[in-house]
Amino acid sequence: MALQDLKGVSGVSVSEADPAGSERRPAQPRQGVVAAAVYRGGIRIADIAVEEAAAWREREEAVIWIGLHEPDDELLLQVQDAFDLHELAIEDARHAHQRPKLEIYGDAMFVVARTAHMMNDEIVFGETHLFVGRGYVVSVRHGASSSYNLVRQRCEASPAALAHGENYILYSILDFVVDNYMPVIEAIHAEIEALEERVLREQLGKADIERLYLLRRNLLRLRNAVVPLVDVCRRHEHLDLPGMDDALHNLFRDVTDHVRRVQEDIDSLREVLAFTFEASLMIGQAEQTIIARKLASWAAILAVPTAIAGIYGMNFHDMPELSFRYGYFVVLAAILTICAVLYRLFRRARWL
Amino acid sequence: MALQDLKGVSGVSVSEADPAGSERRPAQPRQGVVAAAVYRGGIRIADIAVEEAAAWREREEAVIWIGLHEPDDELLLQVQDAFDLHELAIEDARHAHQRPKLEIYGDAMFVVARTAHMMNDEIVFGETHLFVGRGYVVSVRHGASSSYNLVRQRCEASPAALAHGENYILYSILDFVVDNYMPVIEAIHAEIEALEERVLREQLGKADIERLYLLRRNLLRLRNAVVPLVDVCRRHEHLDLPGMDDALHNLFRDVTDHVRRVQEDIDSLREVLAFTFEASLMIGQAEQTIIARKLASWAAILAVPTAIAGIYGMNFHDMPELSFRYGYFVVLAAILTICAVLYRLFRRARWL
Amino acid sequence: MALQDLKGVSGVSVSEADPAGSERRPAQPRQGVVAAAVYRGGIRIADIAVEEAAAWREREEAVIWIGLHEPDDELLLQVQDAFDLHELAIEDARHAHQRPKLEIYGDAMFVVARTAHMMNDEIVFGETHLFVGRGYVVSVRHGASSSYNLVRQRCEASPAALAHGENYILYSILDFVVDNYMPVIEAIHAEIEALEERVLREQLGKADIERLYLLRRNLLRLRNAVVPLVDVCRRHEHLDLPGMDDALHNLFRDVTDHVRRVQEDIDSLREVLAFTFEASLMIGQAEQTIIARKLASWAAILAVPTAIAGIYGMNFHDMPELSFRYGYFVVLAAILTICAVLYRLFRRARWL
Amino acid sequence: MALQDLKGVSGVSVSEADPAGSERRPAQPRQGVVAAAVYRGGIRIADIAVEEAAAWREREEAVIWIGLHEPDDELLLQVQDAFDLHELAIEDARHAHQRPKLEIYGDAMFVVARTAHMMNDEIVFGETHLFVGRGYVVSVRHGASSSYNLVRQRCEASPAALAHGENYILYSILDFVVDNYMPVIEAIHAEIEALEERVLREQLGKADIERLYLLRRNLLRLRNAVVPLVDVCRRHEHLDLPGMDDALHNLFRDVTDHVRRVQEDIDSLREVLAFTFEASLMIGQAEQTIIARKLASWAAILAVPTAIAGIYGMNFHDMPELSFRYGYFVVLAAILTICAVLYRLFRRARWL
Amino acid sequence: MALQDLKGVSGVSVSEADPAGSERRPAQPRQGVVAAAVYRGGIRIADIAVEEAAAWREREEAVIWIGLHEPDDELLLQVQDAFDLHELAIEDARHAHQRPKLEIYGDAMFVVARTAHMMNDEIVFGETHLFVGRGYVVSVRHGASSSYNLVRQRCEASPAALAHGENYILYSILDFVVDNYMPVIEAIHAEIEALEERVLREQLGKADIERLYLLRRNLLRLRNAVVPLVDVCRRHEHLDLPGMDDALHNLFRDVTDHVRRVQEDIDSLREVLAFTFEASLMIGQAEQTIIARKLASWAAILAVPTAIAGIYGMNFHDMPELSFRYGYFVVLAAILTICAVLYRLFRRARWL
Repeated sequence: MALQDLKGVSGVSVSEADPAGSERRPAQPRQGVVAAAVYRGGIRIADIAVEEAAAWREREEAVIWIGLHEPDDELLLQVQDAFDLHELAIEDARHAHQRPKLEIYGDAMFVVARTAHMMNDEIVFGETHLFVGRGYVVSVRHGASSSYNLVRQRCEASPAALAHGENYILYSILDFVVDNYMPVIEAIHAEIEALEERVLREQLGKADIERLYLLRRNLLRLRNAVVPLVDVCRRHEHLDLPGMDDALHNLFRDVTDHVRRVQEDIDSLREVLAFTFEASLMIGQAEQTIIARKLASWAAILAVPTAIAGIYGMNFHDMPELSFRYGYFVVLAAILTICAVLYRLFRRARWL
Repeated sequence: MALQDLKGVSGVSVSEADPAGSERRPAQPRQGVVAAAVYRGGIRIADIAVEEAAAWREREEAVIWIGLHEPDDELLLQVQDAFDLHELAIEDARHAHQRPKLEIYGDAMFVVARTAHMMNDEIVFGETHLFVGRGYVVSVRHGASSSYNLVRQRCEASPAALAHGENYILYSILDFVVDNYMPVIEAIHAEIEALEERVLREQLGKADIERLYLLRRNLLRLRNAVVPLVDVCRRHEHLDLPGMDDALHNLFRDVTDHVRRVQEDIDSLREVLAFTFEASLMIGQAEQTIIARKLASWAAILAVPTAIAGIYGMNFHDMPELSFRYGYFVVLAAILTICAVLYRLFRRARWL
Repeated sequence: MALQDLKGVSGVSVSEADPAGSERRPAQPRQGVVAAAVYRGGIRIADIAVEEAAAWREREEAVIWIGLHEPDDELLLQVQDAFDLHELAIEDARHAHQRPKLEIYGDAMFVVARTAHMMNDEIVFGETHLFVGRGYVVSVRHGASSSYNLVRQRCEASPAALAHGENYILYSILDFVVDNYMPVIEAIHAEIEALEERVLREQLGKADIERLYLLRRNLLRLRNAVVPLVDVCRRHEHLDLPGMDDALHNLFRDVTDHVRRVQEDIDSLREVLAFTFEASLMIGQAEQTIIARKLASWAAILAVPTAIAGIYGMNFHDMPELSFRYGYFVVLAAILTICAVLYRLFRRARWL
Repeated sequence: MALQDLKGVSGVSVSEADPAGSERRPAQPRQGVVAAAVYRGGIRIADIAVEEAAAWREREEAVIWIGLHEPDDELLLQVQDAFDLHELAIEDARHAHQRPKLEIYGDAMFVVARTAHMMNDEIVFGETHLFVGRGYVVSVRHGASSSYNLVRQRCEASPAALAHGENYILYSILDFVVDNYMPVIEAIHAEIEALEERVLREQLGKADIERLYLLRRNLLRLRNAVVPLVDVCRRHEHLDLPGMDDALHNLFRDVTDHVRRVQEDIDSLREVLAFTFEASLMIGQAEQTIIARKLASWAAILAVPTAIAGIYGMNFHDMPELSFRYGYFVVLAAILTICAVLYRLFRRARWL
Repeated sequence: MALQDLKGVSGVSVSEADPAGSERRPAQPRQGVVAAAVYRGGIRIADIAVEEAAAWREREEAVIWIGLHEPDDELLLQVQDAFDLHELAIEDARHAHQRPKLEIYGDAMFVVARTAHMMNDEIVFGETHLFVGRGYVVSVRHGASSSYNLVRQRCEASPAALAHGENYILYSILDFVVDNYMPVIEAIHAEIEALEERVLREQLGKADIERLYLLRRNLLRLRNAVVPLVDVCRRHEHLDLPGMDDALHNLFRDVTDHVRRVQEDIDSLREVLAFTFEASLMIGQAEQTIIARKLASWAAILAVPTAIAGIYGMNFHDMPELSFRYGYFVVLAAILTICAVLYRLFRRARWL
């Protein structure tokens, strides 16, 4: 099967906001179905329509892998019928906004994960629902998540691994989801580093404070996506699933480890942002002190000529200094001298 | 049984503050009783008076569902007698202000939940007490909570599910309670978003600070309602109740999941409000710095004419400049020049 | 037995600061002994002296209940001898300032609880030590706690319950202690509400800040009294005590629940006080900004006449404007116009 | 054995900074050995040299108790040889700066505790290492901790208790260490109370802020000493040690309880200091607002004579008011009136 | 084997940034291999090339210890082949930036630790990956960590200990890593002490705030390195590894203890930095208050001559004071007196 065939499956369901996931399938383009294929021994043996899934499911050794993107209710019902999926899980898959979780319904597993990736310098969040059972995996993407065709390609490129069946597919998708967190974290990290340089140079302006605020909110959102996933991975570890051998266990442990690393990074960044906030408060306070000192110093210096000149501007008839020769120049000199002395005093005290 | 009959049961007990829950029952309108019916196989077979409950309770397969709203002591005693409820649970039900909890008294379960819903853009909190035992459910509402007749209608609309008996009724009520948290959270969320836009534009005024403060208090109150409910759900999961099959377990797990999602949302909003507070402090500090700089700049600029004019306003007899031709104009020009230069310097330093 | 007899036992030991607990016993008033009686089947069969306790203890079915208030060492030794109490527990009971705890010494239980109640609008803290064993309860009160005669009266009013023996007495006292926390919390709550209204109206003055500070300290102290009591209740639940039947278990669970509710209230109030602090900081900052703006505005407006008048106060011989007809009035008008324009500008910018 | 003999053991090892622990032993004063004795049945039967310890160890029923203070390496090696102590424990004992901990090496216990006591109004921290095994206790003190001779005296005064052997000695030393925390906490408590009075009266000066800062650091250090000790006590409780009967268990539980009480006190004080910080911030902010208001008020009042006088100081030829009769007095009166009105307005607004 | 031989192994792989770890091996200098040797009974019996490792591995009692520094892919593959290392572990070792962790792959252990040491007054972070299995240890260093040749020397100096095999080598390396944290903590500690002295003397300048900020970030990074290591040590304790006897267990427990002590130190320093931040805020606020008071005081004092002189500078024809004899001097004296009185008042109020 040519890679080219795989890549273009169903471009109709792809929103304009998601050019990265644009796919096209010349024949039977069905709204919401990104790809649907049957594998045996890790080799793709047929592309199927969703309606045929139930029939294929009964065959020995066949693994059906269907990828959906924001399916309509009719399509979801077909999938539900084909794999006997539980009503509650289908209900969850219909409305997005679920917490990342792993639920067991009879002998089927329902996994929810939140996705995040960078798109035009913006963080875009999405949600993926996975139905996994003996011999099938159905993935349902919501929002602007990356298409899993890349995962499918990679899996098909190593048939020996893919021969492990549905658990390997589940691992591949989770691994992909977690891998996609990394560039998001790196982007946030870069922005924080740019911000902290500004923080330490001068008091932040409104635009920077807004940026800081949005960074904190995005990190919070990312954290809400990642933290429950640690639990999902831990729960999966303790399930006694058919077909989970040591090799697969190691792979899942690797994902768990990766999620934890992501969580640690997020927590560090959150703490750094808290430090940034505190440093910014301190810088702002120091700035205010500097301005207050400067204001006080100049006010003092400029009050001298005003006060002295005011006194010699009085209209008393009998003010002997006024008729002194060079009195004016002496006063001018006195004013300048006092101002100069004050200036030096303030300078020495580091107020100016 | 017509829906119309179901809807109007006992309008007497409904306070004017709760138009949403207005119900009417033509016959035997008893103060405090919203509805009382017996079900068999999920079908409502009779509307009963509270006094008849004890008799019905002995019949096989019958499930009694009674809904009360702020019952008086006499009514509570009748209910207690009919179902042999424990004194302490009745005591709790009499006085509201209980923590959400699940208690087992003999073979009866006593559940307390706090409700919250929006009414005229205000969050209104209430409390619901549930007595659940073999063959009966008694709900006692306190405060301005929504009536559970909507729950009853929905249950009666799916008799197959209602045939599960008291546990299904308990599930339906809890599900309804948790569902009602969502619009409250959404309203708070909308208000926070409006607030955070203002926070990032300028320093908050007193009205906004008050709004922020009240939001925090309401979120705290909502959290106090929701968090112990997670424990209630978890405890219920580990009870070995008669009639709890897999299907019901899945439903209760779904409620638990929903409550957790609500808690996560609340915690996120709380954290966002904390960010808002910090951003507001920073914006306020930046605002003060800006004002201090402007004040200092204009003070400096305006001190120039005052000081120079003061000097040439002195009355010394011998001030040669005074008799210079165009002396006045030179000084005027000097003043304007110095002011202009200062203005540009401050401008360049972004103080003005 | 007449209530009158019960009420007045030993007024000598009651400090003047505790009029609520004033009791009097005409015969044998012994310093430190508030009441000492023997019960059988829930009925008070005899009032005894502490010295007789050991003899009564050997009789079947008798329950001895002794109430002490700040006993001297001699009295404590007598009690120790009568009930074979452990040295360490007696040591603890001698010096107050223990953490709330539950200890088992052999077959005797030693419980410490901290009490709090309102007295003349002030929160007063005390400490109660309880020795509980097969057939006896000894309570030792320290500080200004309420007398337990009210508990005794209530117990004697329901002999069926009191027939449960020492565990019921222990329950009654703990229930009373926890009930007494409620008015304290309500008083604090009322004060916080008064304070938060002031916080949201204007910046707090020193007296309010002090009040806020003291509220926080009192809440902290109350919390230190209540939180370990949750542990005490939980430990009691897991003890395998003789005579603890289901009914008693339910009662103790009710107390535990009550303590938890108290703790939740305290934590909420603490959080509200933290919000109050933050709101107060924000209000204070907003206030400072407003003042700075006003100061800057008026300084700018008033600098105008000063600067212009200064210029026309110069003594240059050749200042053509000075001899203009109506020059003075033109300048006056110019000054007024500039000031008025500035005023409107500042007004529009909401600086004034 | 006379108390006098016991008191003076080895003054050489005592630093000048520790007069409280000054001891002297006339015979065999060995550097680093404070006391070394053998007990049987709670009675001191011989004073020994460290070299003789190994020989004594083999005798039945003998308990060796050696107290060292900052021993040199040679002495530590002798002790290690005598009791077969583990290399790692000796290594720890050589270099102080260990965390409080309890380690088991074979059948010997190694306990580390941090000590704290008041000396000349300063908190002094030290460290004690204890080697406890069948029939011996070796204590090694580092830093300015109190001598344990007081403990030895108390133990010898109650031979029945001391007859319990090494576990009783361990208890006595731990109890002494924990008891010594109390005066430290009381001293800190007194200082905090003095500070909080100042905090609530006016904004803190630099000296007070420094004091506050040092208090927080000392509390942190004390907390680091105490908190791990709770774990040490808990671990000890769960050890199955030979010779630990119920009586000893109760004693150790008493120490645990005491440590917990100390920890609770420390945590309360830490929280009070946090409240103090926040109250101080609020007082400081209120202070600044008051000053800003006063400054603004006086600036406004004083600007009036300056502006008006400036206008009448202008040199226009045609200023009719100047030649009005009493014009000067009218203007003077106007100035005074305006200033007085402003003053009253500011007064009423509580700005002055 | 001479120490000299040991020291110089492979200088090629050492980056210029790491002069401390510079090594040279005259023969077979292979890029990335720092040392590779075989031990039997704790004695180095041969230096080997990585290619020979597989052959040596089959011999009884031989322990192979290979030290790598930033190996290229080819070298890693050779090592993987020689010891059958797991693909995922090799993958981790290729890309650094792993969390400290301990993983078991079959019968091999994979340990990740983060290193930190001081270099030219800068903290330098690195990463070490350890593959440990029956009869071999492979260490892979990334970044500027210290070479482990010092560890190798120490191990070879005590053959009896080294005879314990791979577990002893693992212990030695972990011990070395943890020991290297200490100078880093001491350097941070010294800097914090310098900073806190400045904090308490005056408001921090921008350079100090930046220093404070960087200290916090470095401590955070160090904490991220150390905290997961506590888990690694704890996990190791509970592994049932071949060849782990009591002596080794004690050694590993000693490392665990050391890591915990390091963590406690880091947490204390973090808390001290938080105190420093708060103290700095308070000092800054106090500073601003002082400046505001000084500014207000001088403004008031200097407003006096201006206002009075302004009044006598008015040009009214009829101002009787102007023609008073000594009027000018009286006014001068009045001005000076008022200023002096104000000065003393401000002085007394501690505003000046």
